[in-house]
Amino acid sequence: ARPRVGYFYSGKKTGQAVIDSMMNMKVKDFQSIPVVVSENISVYDAICQMFLEDVGTLFVVDKNAYLTGVLSRKDLLRTSIGNQDLHNIPVHIIMTRMPNIAFCLKTDGLIQAANKLIERQIDALPVVIEHPDGYEVIGRLTKTNITRAFLSLADNHDL
Amino acid sequence: ARPRVGYFYSGKKTGQAVIDSMMNMKVKDFQSIPVVVSENISVYDAICQMFLEDVGTLFVVDKNAYLTGVLSRKDLLRTSIGNQDLHNIPVHIIMTRMPNIAFCLKTDGLIQAANKLIERQIDALPVVIEHPDGYEVIGRLTKTNITRAFLSLADNHDL
Repeated sequence: ARPRVGYFYSGKKTGQAVIDSMMNMKVKDFQSIPVVVSENISVYDAICQMFLEDVGTLFVVDKNAYLTGVLSRKDLLRTSIGNQDLHNIPVHIIMTRMPNIAFCLKTDGLIQAANKLIERQIDALPVVIEHPDGYEVIGRLTKTNITRAFLSLADNHDL
Repeated sequence: ARPRVGYFYSGKKTGQAVIDSMMNMKVKDFQSIPVVVSENISVYDAICQMFLEDVGTLFVVDKNAYLTGVLSRKDLLRTSIGNQDLHNIPVHIIMTRMPNIAFCLKTDGLIQAANKLIERQIDALPVVIEHPDGYEVIGRLTKTNITRAFLSLADNHDL
């Protein structure tokens, strides 16, 4: 962070650049790789997958690879505390199902996607491509990605 | 979002204001209320507390109410899948312990705290007051708080 005292023109330019950066941020610039599982795997295997991939949200897809559900760490914790036999519970029983899933497109504005995360009180959105018969999952947008975007505003403009 | 074409002065002013906002953001302006538990409660009770309070991180305190540990949803999920008797495991066995806990002060800059969340790969920081013999927990700073801060930049400046 360089001192800006007396350098009015420089400050002005940087300021407008921060606004431009924020307005131009797209989901695709900050999204992560999605981790998907099949509807028929067990809750036990889903939890293992979550730890192996070190993510907080799994997306569930059908045999056509279209989105059918979402599993959060919270969903899995809720199920694991009440049930002793996690090997015999398929994830489709406990997942949040379409059409109750909030999602976004890679061309959506990051501000719009961040608003969706806050309004729906969720940790991640699937980034999808809409096909006539379903949604293909191509990314994952989380509050970690938004935190990185927030920091990139400061980094890029030397605050 | 009002059109800014041809209104150069207005745009310039807003731009500098966004920079000022980001640099002046403090932890205390965005922190949440902390949820604390005692070292001797069971993992089972900690999970219940997490759902009751609807948080992703619990802070563990000793009998003087000083910070001794942190419990994430991930810690609790890891323990709950491998163990059948969660009532008999005290949280102090599985928690992350001082001095391995990243924390922040309420007067810290939000950019600095957000950097800590990303570097340490954690979801929440305890906001503490330093006393000669320990750290008193007075708040909780999460990636949700950072996401709200990111959105407040857009809201306050009518992007």
